[in-house]
Amino acid sequence: MSKYTAIAAITLDGKIAKSKNHMSDWTSPEDKVFMRGILDKSDVIIVGNNTYKTAVRPLSKRNCIVFSRSANQPVKKSANLTYCNPANINLRQLIKDKKYKTVAILGGAQTYAWCLENNLLDEIYLTIEPVVFGRGINLFENKKFLNKYFKLASVKKLNHKGSLLLNYKRV
Amino acid sequence: MSKYTAIAAITLDGKIAKSKNHMSDWTSPEDKVFMRGILDKSDVIIVGNNTYKTAVRPLSKRNCIVFSRSANQPVKKSANLTYCNPANINLRQLIKDKKYKTVAILGGAQTYAWCLENNLLDEIYLTIEPVVFGRGINLFENKKFLNKYFKLASVKKLNHKGSLLLNYKRV
Repeated sequence: MSKYTAIAAITLDGKIAKSKNHMSDWTSPEDKVFMRGILDKSDVIIVGNNTYKTAVRPLSKRNCIVFSRSANQPVKKSANLTYCNPANINLRQLIKDKKYKTVAILGGAQTYAWCLENNLLDEIYLTIEPVVFGRGINLFENKKFLNKYFKLASVKKLNHKGSLLLNYKRV
Repeated sequence: MSKYTAIAAITLDGKIAKSKNHMSDWTSPEDKVFMRGILDKSDVIIVGNNTYKTAVRPLSKRNCIVFSRSANQPVKKSANLTYCNPANINLRQLIKDKKYKTVAILGGAQTYAWCLENNLLDEIYLTIEPVVFGRGINLFENKKFLNKYFKLASVKKLNHKGSLLLNYKRV
């Protein structure tokens, strides 16, 4: 069985960004170090097209599945880069066929939401940065109301100001 | 100087409720115990009209300032209950005149947002319950984008499933 792990940094008020093109420049260096570490240990990364575009260079060397509504069929752009529309394929089977064991879900909000809703979210690493944006893009942007239960597995303070790394596992 | 402390329970994805009338029935018993304790120690509670309506009975014995857009002038409904529109008064002065030292801000989202934007939020007690709603009412519902910085002062695990009580202080 493959393990699906979402990795996200949020503000104290649950935002992953102010807007679509405002990505991870606001997160702490300690969170960036953690994120790189977990990506290094992942067999493949699932990422939405907008998020991918903001991080093409660091992601280009890794195995990536990029979610895109315009990909009617899975499109293999290079040896390690596949575009697909998850609504049109059996993603779990694709991951299994590739023998990917560890899957990192890198966002954004719609990608997290899709994985959550389709029970492809076994674990979450959530970094809470001690800042408030007041408004912005939420961690999940689901269409339906859900009740998805998790259990807190660990808590780690990453730095002096108190960026907090939480690990949740699905109940 | 009076101290303004927001108290809130949120889901893992930063929601305080699914909708306006869905209030705190989803939070853990341990968070409710904590909340009662801090309200007991507060001189006055600031609460929005919608939130107040969902908790009239437990709040009726406490000093309350209820935010309401329709209160053009502060209206004293009883010895311990005042309605006001914060846009039309000097709230800090009113609190000072009453000699209230500890002020608890109980929400909802617009009340938290108003206090945040007007620098009447010195401290936050945030309980993160390990559940995801996917969508709903955000902790803050500000109109403008903000960058309000806090520092994590303490972390406490409240129960086995991992409801987490975080204390943030304004930087």
